[in-house]
Amino acid sequence: MAWTLEADHVADLARGAAVLGTGGGGDPHIGALLATQALATHGPVTVVGVDEVPDDARVVMVAMMGAPTVMVEKLPSLEEVVTPVRAVEPFLDGPVTHIACAEVGGVNSTIPIAAAAALGLPLVDCDAMGRAFPELQMVLPTLSGASATPLAFADDKGNSGVLTTVDNHWAERIARVACVEMGCSFMISLFPQSGARLRETMVAGSLSQAAAVGRSITAARAAKEDPVARVVEELRGRELFAGKVVDVERATTTGFARGRARVEGDAGTLRLSFQNEHLLAELGDEVLATTPDLIMVLEHDSGEPITTEGLRYGQRVRVIAAPSDERWHTREALAMVGPRYFGYDLEPHRFDGALEVAS
Amino acid sequence: MAWTLEADHVADLARGAAVLGTGGGGDPHIGALLATQALATHGPVTVVGVDEVPDDARVVMVAMMGAPTVMVEKLPSLEEVVTPVRAVEPFLDGPVTHIACAEVGGVNSTIPIAAAAALGLPLVDCDAMGRAFPELQMVLPTLSGASATPLAFADDKGNSGVLTTVDNHWAERIARVACVEMGCSFMISLFPQSGARLRETMVAGSLSQAAAVGRSITAARAAKEDPVARVVEELRGRELFAGKVVDVERATTTGFARGRARVEGDAGTLRLSFQNEHLLAELGDEVLATTPDLIMVLEHDSGEPITTEGLRYGQRVRVIAAPSDERWHTREALAMVGPRYFGYDLEPHRFDGALEVAS
Repeated sequence: MAWTLEADHVADLARGAAVLGTGGGGDPHIGALLATQALATHGPVTVVGVDEVPDDARVVMVAMMGAPTVMVEKLPSLEEVVTPVRAVEPFLDGPVTHIACAEVGGVNSTIPIAAAAALGLPLVDCDAMGRAFPELQMVLPTLSGASATPLAFADDKGNSGVLTTVDNHWAERIARVACVEMGCSFMISLFPQSGARLRETMVAGSLSQAAAVGRSITAARAAKEDPVARVVEELRGRELFAGKVVDVERATTTGFARGRARVEGDAGTLRLSFQNEHLLAELGDEVLATTPDLIMVLEHDSGEPITTEGLRYGQRVRVIAAPSDERWHTREALAMVGPRYFGYDLEPHRFDGALEVAS
Repeated sequence: MAWTLEADHVADLARGAAVLGTGGGGDPHIGALLATQALATHGPVTVVGVDEVPDDARVVMVAMMGAPTVMVEKLPSLEEVVTPVRAVEPFLDGPVTHIACAEVGGVNSTIPIAAAAALGLPLVDCDAMGRAFPELQMVLPTLSGASATPLAFADDKGNSGVLTTVDNHWAERIARVACVEMGCSFMISLFPQSGARLRETMVAGSLSQAAAVGRSITAARAAKEDPVARVVEELRGRELFAGKVVDVERATTTGFARGRARVEGDAGTLRLSFQNEHLLAELGDEVLATTPDLIMVLEHDSGEPITTEGLRYGQRVRVIAAPSDERWHTREALAMVGPRYFGYDLEPHRFDGALEVAS
């Protein structure tokens, strides 16, 4: 069902998306700022359900590509957000009719709002992952054979480009090196799909879900209840661990923010491994959760989502997990986003909601 | 005056271009092979003088970008040569009408022949440097304010892209990282210009000059005369040094073939420094020649041009120099292609034909 997204909705949506973004996608407040500004200038955005998109619609995803560590310092202009959409249009059979999100995650759930507002186009209530992942081919449409290209990119200086590649891994490789050269962060539009195709390939309703998660945090705070417990309930997840961040190692290499963090609690020391997003949570020899399931770090009391680049020594946090979209657990999907792809020598752990909470 | 370029002309033209290419541009025989094949399949190419190109013609340069060390192992297909030309056309106000060379140099004088043949288009008797240089912004049109973009690239796998950049240095940077990622060599089309613009910016007659240099080598060999002396005469240059290659250091880094060579002769040891092309010739403390003037290494007896990646221990060679196009000696031009740009801490040496030959 269609709904109208106004400036007041942005804060909750951005916060909820940052939870679902599993630490990636950049600072939600920065993305929210851009979306709020765009909505103020261009008016509200209509959010339509995937079932409301005409079969012959021309939908493109809009996203910021790059290292979140850099993104937070380089907020794009509205022009930069619009340029890649205009740049792919000559490659389609007509103008773009709808905007979609590539992932739910801080910046990448709010940038598409800004794009939709600035372009005067509806935004589809969906995303391509149901979470965030660091590489552009890591989306469910890839598993359905959809092409990431024509993919357009644009930077803050006025440089732009359009790629056509033989597969989505090549789109990632070429766009990534261009991104690194152009300052480690730029705007892209990608995965042009028809409305009919979109319905088959995307995670439906994820913007509404992000908004609901954000609202539940706000509501719990107002009611002096536990926001983290509300998020866990909303996502049918579970709390893995509570403790204090005692160590963060982080390096921005080849366009990604890679690193590890240790969280000390009563149950021992939790090790988090990330590459833009949180990918592993391990307690001693026990693997508590792995990609593709969602691993989220929230501030202990407020439930505020903490991005991987926002992790700091001394933070009191709670680490929660939730199941990913079922399609991420096929063999083909795990080859693309399972722990081994990211260089961790272990089997994917399947989320099990029945396990007890360690704390 | 227009002339018809047939398969028999290719060998001389490629050899002459390899001389003018100052060691860069890849193995001339490889480029010649592709051009000969294209001419055999598609028929001869009409070469027109810059004065014969209509003012409103749409001319693009076609070239192979990358490290010559890699180029020699990756001969492009005709399809790969044609793809970038087709890919820029949507960005122009009509189809491309003429093909031009970006540089005179082994592969990059013959690839455009192949492109013109395969596309059924005339080739303009000119190039953008009057020699070869390693980076794409290093052309005379850049000095006249012409844009390298829209620039299209295509690799052997079927990946392609089109760039639009704020200046030609950005075009070089982005295309270079894409090139490295895509296998260190790919085909590009760039610098779309009108016929009127072309006449102002290019070096006129350089294909004819390359063919004349090649013919003079062939003729000297047939007449048992000295081919190197004939080349020196043809280019109004001078011989700098004769000797034996005793040392070659070479590394293919960030998409370039960089290195140094030492040549031992009666007059001492000549040091050659190169980055795709020969850039410096020094004898002891004396600088004999520097970029932007032409430094060429020819096989001692046959006058066969030796590319920087073809330099080998034990080769008996003669090193010659010739003046570059006068426009390369302005302050602005020297900032782009003078020794300091390439990291050598010395002033550009102005070619002086009156100096004696060291041998």
